Amino acid sequence: MIFLFTDFTRDGPYVGQMQAVLAAEAPGIPVIDLMQDAPAHAPKPAAYLLAALATAFPENAVCVGVVDPGVGTERPPVVVEADGRRFVGPGNGLFELVARRAATTRTQRIQWRPDTLSASFHGRDLFAPVAAMLATGSVPDDLFAPDPMEGLPGADWPDDLSEILYADGFGNLMTGLRAASIAESTPLRAGGKTIPRARIFGEATPDTPFWYANSCGLIEIAVPSGSAAAALGLVVGDTIKLG
Amino acid sequence: MIFLFTDFTRDGPYVGQMQAVLAAEAPGIPVIDLMQDAPAHAPKPAAYLLAALATAFPENAVCVGVVDPGVGTERPPVVVEADGRRFVGPGNGLFELVARRAATTRTQRIQWRPDTLSASFHGRDLFAPVAAMLATGSVPDDLFAPDPMEGLPGADWPDDLSEILYADGFGNLMTGLRAASIAESTPLRAGGKTIPRARIFGEATPDTPFWYANSCGLIEIAVPSGSAAAALGLVVGDTIKLG
Amino acid sequence: MIFLFTDFTRDGPYVGQMQAVLAAEAPGIPVIDLMQDAPAHAPKPAAYLLAALATAFPENAVCVGVVDPGVGTERPPVVVEADGRRFVGPGNGLFELVARRAATTRTQRIQWRPDTLSASFHGRDLFAPVAAMLATGSVPDDLFAPDPMEGLPGADWPDDLSEILYADGFGNLMTGLRAASIAESTPLRAGGKTIPRARIFGEATPDTPFWYANSCGLIEIAVPSGSAAAALGLVVGDTIKLG
Repeated sequence: MIFLFTDFTRDGPYVGQMQAVLAAEAPGIPVIDLMQDAPAHAPKPAAYLLAALATAFPENAVCVGVVDPGVGTERPPVVVEADGRRFVGPGNGLFELVARRAATTRTQRIQWRPDTLSASFHGRDLFAPVAAMLATGSVPDDLFAPDPMEGLPGADWPDDLSEILYADGFGNLMTGLRAASIAESTPLRAGGKTIPRARIFGEATPDTPFWYANSCGLIEIAVPSGSAAAALGLVVGDTIKLG
Repeated sequence: MIFLFTDFTRDGPYVGQMQAVLAAEAPGIPVIDLMQDAPAHAPKPAAYLLAALATAFPENAVCVGVVDPGVGTERPPVVVEADGRRFVGPGNGLFELVARRAATTRTQRIQWRPDTLSASFHGRDLFAPVAAMLATGSVPDDLFAPDPMEGLPGADWPDDLSEILYADGFGNLMTGLRAASIAESTPLRAGGKTIPRARIFGEATPDTPFWYANSCGLIEIAVPSGSAAAALGLVVGDTIKLG
Repeated sequence: MIFLFTDFTRDGPYVGQMQAVLAAEAPGIPVIDLMQDAPAHAPKPAAYLLAALATAFPENAVCVGVVDPGVGTERPPVVVEADGRRFVGPGNGLFELVARRAATTRTQRIQWRPDTLSASFHGRDLFAPVAAMLATGSVPDDLFAPDPMEGLPGADWPDDLSEILYADGFGNLMTGLRAASIAESTPLRAGGKTIPRARIFGEATPDTPFWYANSCGLIEIAVPSGSAAAALGLVVGDTIKLG
């Protein structure tokens, strides 16, 4: 199974062009259009979101992850193996949290290049073909550079990120904090307010911001039948505090 | 064939996460991303929309329908069979019109539970796995509760709904009225105007609201090369009148 | 492989309804949701965009292309063959540039009709079934009218279109000019400014509009970390000049 995780949005032809490459080069392998509105041009918050989503990936998953503001410049293309799952994309920290939370991990630099490589769309021209190689097991000998890949960004990032990663269309705010990392009795502080926990929307106080453990294990701030983004005046990138 | 009909929107990872479950648990069965912007948190109008779309479902279709403001609370999870098609989702009236318009129907309460059930995402954790069971025919003995399911919401809803169900991005307004339920000569009244019928955009009066039988059999209000929503000042949930 | 290229947007049930038809009538053939936000109701600019995207189509591709403001009126439904690829949709010029740039081409009028043909959704009722026939090779004898199809719109359109075809969510502006058609040293003029070329975002001057050859070979105007649409005050349909 191949997963697509990008900041391309679903507008335009970009996700479809990647899917066409995968359908041609990895026929019969399901391709999951997982999320195309990852934090735009922001590998760091995107890394926390991807790591949360990846906990549900099956063992043989290959993920094409593209949040790549440096496309066409010097950042290396990489494959990160994390407990058997393979992540293909830019070596800019996007896979740092996936790797850090795995028991076994390996990062390799992709040295293979396609016959035609556009300057701006490595997702289609480089990462999707490599994902197809990995998913089908048809891997050229020289796919990876022989030297170990070291010094990628992200080594100094925290284990959990006290930031808003994502706001959905209803105004719910996903953070980079794993719910399992804090006690249920711990309130959050953000937007000048103290935010208590509730198990679920239906048990929270009407019109009042609360936090809950969302379905991918992250702390999410919401307002029953309302918009937490509007109620708290928060946007993606804003900081939240604990306690 | 498995259909997905939700109010999740296509933003975020939610539809993709459901598709990953279905790809893993019902391999080889096509999954159709039918509509993810059903009336938000509103099972009643969504029920009329789903019933209109479902007239085109093939006989062996399984539909995961999730418009579920009560997720994580006491509403029962159900499977509704309607003329052989199976609908999996919350027992909140969402399948009322599908059932009412079928020659043969049966509603059963799902008592099976997955090993891990999030409080907020039964679409991924409960409904998608049950849909995969039904689509593959690999159904556990205790999937359903033995007692008949009765007393669900919706029994008192009308056969057609005189409301705007859906506004598309061009400002066309879909209603809950089946076109076959009224005479072609009947005008609508909404937004302070009388709205005549035309067969199609190209035959309607320029810049003037008209109604037509849309491609799923519902009455839809439009303006040639314009926005009916803007011209009439109507939004989803507003009432329309006949005659 | 079947490609879908429309101006339906991904809102509503429309793309899903077409995919359901293709899954039923062309089982096992991959369907690529290529682009659903083509220039709305505008076959001419859409034709330049489709021709650029189609250069990457595999040899056996079938494309359902629907930008069809005249649906339900007299424009003929057609299949255009261009170097072996088949394009199914309205005969309104949408496939003019695809045909013009091919070495071998043929245009035929579809005379086959389904049992039920809605007035407003030929994409689902006519074009998708015909695409399934072509993709599976199961073609009825009377699919096409015997007389040659001539006189379609588009014969007088230019080889490249000096217009903005598409603005993505980041404000990048795609034009109808192929990058290979002009020298790299040629600046553009649009929005009252002179716009130089850069190879890629990372090599352009910060906060300053530049043009580059985008990943489908068209000239695209962008601003590093900014919006070219906002910086230049340009929208889809605006004219650009060379030199």
